[in-house]
Amino acid sequence: MHILWNDQIVERSEVKLDIEDRAYQFGDGLYEALRIYDGEMFMFDEHFARLKRCADEIRLKLPFTKSELKNNLDKLIAAENVDGGEIYFQVSRGVLAPRNHRIPSSEEVKPVLTGNVIPYERPIDKQKHGETACLVEDKRWLHCNIKSLSLLGNILSLDEARQKGCDDALLVRDGFFTEASASNAWFVIDGILYTHPDGNLVLPGITKLRLLEIARSEGLSVKEEAVPVSKLEQVEECFVSNSIWEVAPVVSVDGKPINGGKIGKITKFLQEKYIEWINK
Amino acid sequence: MHILWNDQIVERSEVKLDIEDRAYQFGDGLYEALRIYDGEMFMFDEHFARLKRCADEIRLKLPFTKSELKNNLDKLIAAENVDGGEIYFQVSRGVLAPRNHRIPSSEEVKPVLTGNVIPYERPIDKQKHGETACLVEDKRWLHCNIKSLSLLGNILSLDEARQKGCDDALLVRDGFFTEASASNAWFVIDGILYTHPDGNLVLPGITKLRLLEIARSEGLSVKEEAVPVSKLEQVEECFVSNSIWEVAPVVSVDGKPINGGKIGKITKFLQEKYIEWINK
Repeated sequence: MHILWNDQIVERSEVKLDIEDRAYQFGDGLYEALRIYDGEMFMFDEHFARLKRCADEIRLKLPFTKSELKNNLDKLIAAENVDGGEIYFQVSRGVLAPRNHRIPSSEEVKPVLTGNVIPYERPIDKQKHGETACLVEDKRWLHCNIKSLSLLGNILSLDEARQKGCDDALLVRDGFFTEASASNAWFVIDGILYTHPDGNLVLPGITKLRLLEIARSEGLSVKEEAVPVSKLEQVEECFVSNSIWEVAPVVSVDGKPINGGKIGKITKFLQEKYIEWINK
Repeated sequence: MHILWNDQIVERSEVKLDIEDRAYQFGDGLYEALRIYDGEMFMFDEHFARLKRCADEIRLKLPFTKSELKNNLDKLIAAENVDGGEIYFQVSRGVLAPRNHRIPSSEEVKPVLTGNVIPYERPIDKQKHGETACLVEDKRWLHCNIKSLSLLGNILSLDEARQKGCDDALLVRDGFFTEASASNAWFVIDGILYTHPDGNLVLPGITKLRLLEIARSEGLSVKEEAVPVSKLEQVEECFVSNSIWEVAPVVSVDGKPINGGKIGKITKFLQEKYIEWINK
């Protein structure tokens, strides 16, 4: 397996990480995961823009330009010779010894980039038959718009749902749905499509961004408003979106079927339109 | 520098970490930091008990017994030949590929232990002259009792305070003081000593535990109650505690001096009693 390690493509075994790398000790870094279709990264510009915004928020100076990163990720894809899949990369703030919570200046540390490609097929079964979800209290931090490596909150949310026998968690904060454990959540009520507005409580998903555009251009009624969990009984359709799964229906919540346990009309419509848009 | 790597003492350069180590990608792991006095770890039993509780909470099966860990940490201290200092160690959930948020079963992954010793002298100046603090909104997750590697929330809190020109952050959630960015916070009001009760909003500090015992046995009035930030004007003394700094006064909050900018009587008393207790 080839790895992008800073600006080099190397074998996995050649990568040398330090015990005092701040990603290892603090989860102090950022990541992105993109889909590869036909050997090319999808919506790289949008992912890079999010990375840059997040880097500014945590005061991490990216050690590459946009085109340098793109060139190196393209080289990685070529080295792995992958046609369809996922590309994951992360930027750690770097190595600082001795360990100290304070954010070092950009002169003191050199960020560490690592990336790898994972072959991946469109999850047809998940897209068709959906996933079951459980309600889980959203106990994550109040910087959910930062796509950071400090992900234990998300992991524990998912785990709580899995322990209850569900595939995923629908997170609820102060009585309102925020998102799922690793994707944005969408609801249809009275024919209107709802998703949580951007802000510090959800990740501004790249797929969410595109789906909003598609939904609006197709004339759907869309509201970027948080849905109260008290309206769960009125939810006609529910789905989640992210770059990897694209659009996947949620067929039950806490064991109660949504739309009779089947993918809903609007969900299916958006799923198809999104794939159409990719194919363009 | 010698490193404890799983059950071996090795040179730092020999440690091999994988890019898909879950500590590196998710902050999925736990840590402890202990003081070494006279070549021996201080309150190892209490630190181990906390590690074990946290491991249970995140469903991480520790790959060592208490005595195995103690023996190996003792070997590390001997190898580094340190008399006074800090010993840091962390347990990552281990390497799992391909990357996936779900918590793997203990059969699927082998946790990775890394530890190192940092020579360290008692911070006399900090203990005598204290630190300045700024009020910072506590935006961390709601599992603050888990001493996890997902620490970016703490880092950003400290950074916000430092950007405002203070040494540390006094965190405020819903109008109440919780703790500082990497230590427990204490307040004296009307001669009564307050600190936030244990629970999911603060780390149950080992030094806090001992200070509570000392304060009570010395006949001080102690309340484990959250202090509302609206009482800041009435705060007579403020200090923070952790294993590394022991007891350090907070001499100002948002630029306003506490106790005239000097260490308070009760703070000094507890500082001395704590050191007396160590020396026993």
